[in-house]
Formats: sequence, structure tokens, C-alpha cells
Amino acid sequence: MAVITIERKVLEKNDAFAAQNRQTFAEARLFAINVVSSPGAGKTSLLEQTIERLRGQLRLSVVEGDVQTDLDAQRVARYGAPVVQIVTNGGCHLEAKLVQDALARLDLTATDLLVIENVGNLVCPANYDLGEAMKVVLLSTTEGDDKPLKYPAMFRNASVLVVNKIDLIPYVNCKIDTLIANAHSINPALRVFQVSCTTGVGMDDWCAWLAAQVAAARA
Amino acid sequence: MAVITIERKVLEKNDAFAAQNRQTFAEARLFAINVVSSPGAGKTSLLEQTIERLRGQLRLSVVEGDVQTDLDAQRVARYGAPVVQIVTNGGCHLEAKLVQDALARLDLTATDLLVIENVGNLVCPANYDLGEAMKVVLLSTTEGDDKPLKYPAMFRNASVLVVNKIDLIPYVNCKIDTLIANAHSINPALRVFQVSCTTGVGMDDWCAWLAAQVAAARA
Repeated sequence: MAVITIERKVLEKNDAFAAQNRQTFAEARLFAINVVSSPGAGKTSLLEQTIERLRGQLRLSVVEGDVQTDLDAQRVARYGAPVVQIVTNGGCHLEAKLVQDALARLDLTATDLLVIENVGNLVCPANYDLGEAMKVVLLSTTEGDDKPLKYPAMFRNASVLVVNKIDLIPYVNCKIDTLIANAHSINPALRVFQVSCTTGVGMDDWCAWLAAQVAAARA
Repeated sequence: MAVITIERKVLEKNDAFAAQNRQTFAEARLFAINVVSSPGAGKTSLLEQTIERLRGQLRLSVVEGDVQTDLDAQRVARYGAPVVQIVTNGGCHLEAKLVQDALARLDLTATDLLVIENVGNLVCPANYDLGEAMKVVLLSTTEGDDKPLKYPAMFRNASVLVVNKIDLIPYVNCKIDTLIANAHSINPALRVFQVSCTTGVGMDDWCAWLAAQVAAARA
């Protein structure tokens, strides 16, 4: 009972910081997404390919969240995007205050699209608002088509589902129609993209959608 | 600060239940493992193939943990093993008390090997002892070879690493030697098995090891 009360306070405190971040993003007229997934679904690969494709078209900055290491920030930096790494030291999700601290290290006036890559975890990050315009949940075909039913909070709270590694469908036990139907049974409004960061298929649609969201945020 | 104190109390309470479970397992002379991984790494598939191979040789019972649904318990039940499903309703890990409640529904005197399949989460379950003899961490090659470095607590607290989906190595960006070296840099004592639940490769070694552990627990 005591724990529930404290959890509520933690979330209230988080929501206050998230509201401040949201105000910051609005003032900078940038579009911010919170990318969530299981470990290894391909968040950083999606980011690399997105940076590559949108280069020269819009200015992308990144906040990387990891339990340990700055391996992902190093990968993103190689692609030339400004990046700040948050190491949670065992923490299973990003919180809005951590993101706020990271934002102070970025030039938001020179940012059109801010990508916050959350800790690899399909459970806990679902409940923490970071101030983003929307959550994008990434799901790899290798994880199986039942995952939206088994981790419903994340799919309920996300606005977009990116199904990654569709090139591996011939080799894994995953029916793409079932996966999408399961996701829509949890959240009928979920916008779905099917991509492969390896072959590049689907990346044009995803990037065109991002560019339209950025244009809308700047309008 | 207050939250840290309460987290400690939660873990102390959990450890007390875990100690009771450990005593229960010792009295029943059974071998209990706590299987942890990311969502979709293949915990239930490993379990299905293990049940199939050990049928007639030893008696296996299962505790299934999921955030939602009893899909995994249904899969396991089809293979003929006694199974109890724990639904955490959003909880990101199993706790020892939940497992204790589940144990009351199983005939432990007719169990040689108890498999506790944790919630799919490579972060939070690392810190919760359930009373198991050891944690077995399952990692899919599709998740990439850097995961032991990025989620070190789980690999530090596990005794065994099962690398699954090794049949997919030709199609994914994962060097198996790097993966294992990364895992051993975190935990040099980690016992490693390489398997594919699809092709069956490596399953004989894994099952032989399990059978030896069961024999040791009964000795």
C-alpha cells in the first residue's frame, strides 16, 4: 500500500518534468519521439538508417538511454548526429528529469526531429511520459506475433508500431498479419510501418511520415 | 532516498520468500531454474523442446510468468507438462511470493525439474531471487552480440547462458565469438550453450546438462 503511494508520487513528479519537456519541444517547434522496444529489436539500427536517409533534409538530434555503456551513442555519433548518452546504471526505463538534463547538452534551436531511444524493455518504459509527441514501439519479427497481447501497455500507449526485420520472416515463426491484428486488437489507432534496416525496405515510407510530422510541428 | 529504503525492504521481503522456496525445493529434491530473457528470445520454445526431449526421462513442471495472457501456459500444457500461469498484470518481473503461491498448485513430489519462465525483460528480473538453484539467461542471436555489455546485471547474476536461434546467424548482425567473449567479460564463470529450437542443434547438450543437474539434486 505504501509502495503504491510512492509509485504514484514518482509518476506525478515525472509527469511534471515531462510537461516541462513538452513545453520546451513546443517552443523549439521540434518533433520528439520516444522509441521503445525489447533489447535487440533494432532501435539503434533504425536510427542509423533514418539519419542516413534524412541527411540534408532535416536536422536530427538524439538522446540515447542505456542501462550500461555508451555503445549506442558511439554508433549514432558515427552517423554525424548530435547525441547525448544517458546511462541509467541499472534503471529499467528513462525518466523525464534525466531527459531534461540531457536536453541541456543539445542545441534544440538546431533540431527538427529529436529521437529519444529508451532502454530496451517492453514493460517499464510504457508508463513514463518523457514529454514526447508520441511513443514509437519497435517490434522485431524474430520476437513472434503474440507480443502485442503479452505486453499490452506498451502497444496501448504507443501511437506508432514499426515492425522491423521483415526480411527475416521466411526464417522465423511470425505471421505478419497476425502480429498486426494483435496490435490493432490492443490499439486500433496504431499506425503501422513494416521495415528492414538491413535491406532498407519500408524505410522510405517511415522517413516520409517523419518528415511530415516535423513539418506539422514547425507549421 | 525514501524510495531506495522501500526498495530495500521489498527486496528483503522477497528474499525471505525466496529462502522458503529454496527450502521447499531442497525438501522435494528437485532442481529449479529461473529462465530469463528479452521478449521473444525463445523461452517458451526452449521449454517445449526440452519437455519433448526429456519426456520419460524426468518429470518436468512449469511456472509461467507473463505480464498478460496465458498463451505460454497453453503452449506448455499442449506438451503435457503440469503448468501454472502467473499473470503479473503489468508487473515487470516475478517475485518469490507469487512463485510460492504457484507452487501450492503443483505436485512437487512428482517433479524432478521445475522451470520458472520469468516475464520477458532483461533488466528487472535480474534482482529478484525466486529461490531457484540458478538463473538461466537466454539470448537470441537476433538481439546482437553487444547485449551482455548493455544488460550486465542479468549476465552477472546468471549461471548459464543459452544462445538461441543460432540457425539465424547467417542472416543477422551477430558474431557468436564476440557475444560469448562479451558475456564472459561480465561473468567468466558463465556456462554457455548454443542452440536452435527450430533445427534442434545443441539441444542434446543442453538436456544432458539439465539431466545431470537433476541427478545431482536428487543425490
